[in-house]
Amino acid sequence: MYSYKEKYGEYLSRIEARLKKFYEELDCKPDVLDESLKYSLKSGGKRIRPVLMYAAADLLGFDDEALDDYALALELIHTYSLIHDDLPEMDNDDFRRGKPANHKVFGAGNAVLAGDGLLNTAYYILLSHCNDGKHCVDAAKFMCDCAGVKGMIAGQAADIYCAANAVKDGDMLDFIVKNKTGRLLSAAVATPAILSGGRYFVELRQFGEDLGMLFQLTDDVLDERGREDTLGKTTGKDREENKLTYVTFYGVEQCLVYADVLSSKCLGLLEGVGGDTRFLRDIVSFVRYRES
Amino acid sequence: MYSYKEKYGEYLSRIEARLKKFYEELDCKPDVLDESLKYSLKSGGKRIRPVLMYAAADLLGFDDEALDDYALALELIHTYSLIHDDLPEMDNDDFRRGKPANHKVFGAGNAVLAGDGLLNTAYYILLSHCNDGKHCVDAAKFMCDCAGVKGMIAGQAADIYCAANAVKDGDMLDFIVKNKTGRLLSAAVATPAILSGGRYFVELRQFGEDLGMLFQLTDDVLDERGREDTLGKTTGKDREENKLTYVTFYGVEQCLVYADVLSSKCLGLLEGVGGDTRFLRDIVSFVRYRES
Repeated sequence: MYSYKEKYGEYLSRIEARLKKFYEELDCKPDVLDESLKYSLKSGGKRIRPVLMYAAADLLGFDDEALDDYALALELIHTYSLIHDDLPEMDNDDFRRGKPANHKVFGAGNAVLAGDGLLNTAYYILLSHCNDGKHCVDAAKFMCDCAGVKGMIAGQAADIYCAANAVKDGDMLDFIVKNKTGRLLSAAVATPAILSGGRYFVELRQFGEDLGMLFQLTDDVLDERGREDTLGKTTGKDREENKLTYVTFYGVEQCLVYADVLSSKCLGLLEGVGGDTRFLRDIVSFVRYRES
Repeated sequence: MYSYKEKYGEYLSRIEARLKKFYEELDCKPDVLDESLKYSLKSGGKRIRPVLMYAAADLLGFDDEALDDYALALELIHTYSLIHDDLPEMDNDDFRRGKPANHKVFGAGNAVLAGDGLLNTAYYILLSHCNDGKHCVDAAKFMCDCAGVKGMIAGQAADIYCAANAVKDGDMLDFIVKNKTGRLLSAAVATPAILSGGRYFVELRQFGEDLGMLFQLTDDVLDERGREDTLGKTTGKDREENKLTYVTFYGVEQCLVYADVLSSKCLGLLEGVGGDTRFLRDIVSFVRYRES
C-alpha cells in the first residue's frame, strides 16, 4: 500500500544512513574543520534533493548502490551553498534550520573553509565513480554544471547583485530562482535519468527546474507569513532587506496564483513520464502546500 | 641550448595561452561574476604550478594536449584558494600580487562566489577528461585529494586555528605548510606521473611536498625582510599578527639553514628520477634564492 509519508521516510532513512557512514569515515584535522563540516550536515533539514534523486531513480527502475554516493554528493553541494549563503557578506543569516548558522558557531573563516571542504569532497565522491562507466562521468558533469558558474553560483551572484543595487526586474528574478534553486533540484531528478541511459532526461530536468521555482515561491511566501519558531530561520527578513523575491516583486496573492500554475506544469511534465509517478506528484503538492 | 629562463618562458606562454582561451570562452552572468572570476586569474603571478606540471611532463616524456587542461584546473584551484585566503575573516590581505585583493574590488560576497566558481569550474574541466582513460580519473582524484579536506583545506584550517589560538608548535607548523602549500605543488609534479602510468610518482610527489616547504620557508623569509614594492603584498604582516610561520617560530637564520637542507633533499629526490632533470633542479635553486 503506497503512502507518501512512509515513502519519504524510507528515502530519508536511506540518505541519513549514508550520511552517518560519511560522518564515521570523515576524520579531518584540525578538529575544528572536522566539526564544522559535520555540524551543518547534521543540522538536517528535509533532505529534499536526495529524496528526489531516490524517487526519480525508483520511477526509472534504476537501482544501483552508487546512487547513495550521488545523493550524498548532492547533499554536500547543497549544504556548502547554505553555509556560504549564510555568511555575513552574503545573505547574513544567523540561523539555519533552527540552529545557529555555521559561521556563528565556528566563525566566518572556518565557515568559508567548511563550505569549500564540502564542495571539494562532493567532487571526490563523484570522481570515485568515474570509472564505473560512461554514464557516471556524464552524470557527474551534469551535477557539476548545475552547481557551477552557469548554474547555482550564477544564481547566488545575481541575487547579491540585485540586493546590493536594489534591482527590481522580473527576468532577473526568474534567472536567480532558476539557477539558485532550480538547477540543483534539476540535478536531483535528472541525474538518475543520465545514469540509467538518458530516458526521460528532458522531462525530469524541466520538472526539477519548475519544482525549484515552486519551492522558492512557497519559501518566499512562508518568509513573509511565517513565524520564527515554525520555519526555524529569521523571517520577514527578505522584506526588511528589500531583497528581490517573488513576494516583494509580485505580492503574496499573485505568488499563490503563480504557484498553482507551476504545480500544474510540474504535474503535466510527469504525465509524459512512464512508471509510477505518485510520489513525485505528491511531492509537488507537498511543496505547494507546505507550512514550513 | 638549454636555458632555464627560456624554458620557464615557454611553459609560462603555454599556460597563459590556455588561460586566454579560458577567458574568451567563459561567459557568465551576471557580469560581476564573470569579471571577478577573471580578475584574480589575470593578476598573474609566477604560474609556478602549471610550469611545474609542464616540466614534470617533459621529464617523463608525456606529451598530451589534455595536459593544458590539467594545468588550467590546477591554476584555478590555486587562485580560488588565494581569493578565499585573502578574505577579511581569513588572512585579511588587501593586496595580492601588487593589486587589490578580489574582495577589495568586488566585495567579500562576490569574492566567496568567485572562489567557489573557480573551484567548481576546475572540477568541470577535470571531469571533462574522465572518459579519456583510467589514468585521467586517477589523476583528477589525486588533484582533488591534494586540494581537499585532508590536503590544502586542512592546511588553511590549521593555519587560522593556530593564528586564532596563538599556537606555537613545530609539528603543527609542518602540518600547515605541508598541506597548505606542499600538496598543491605535489599535485603539479605528480599528476603527469599518474597520467603517464605511474612512473616516478613517489619521487615526484615527495619532491613537490618538499619544494612546497622550501617555497614557504623562502616566502616567510621574504615576508620578514621584503619591502612592499618588491613583493607586491603587505610585508612584515605575519609578525605583526603573531602568525605561526617558519620565521616567527625558528627565526630567519635557522630558516635559511632549513632551506638549504630542503634544497638538498629536493635535488636528491631528482637523482632517483631518470631523464633530463635540469629544469626541476634549476627551479629548486630559483625557489631557494628568489628575491620576490
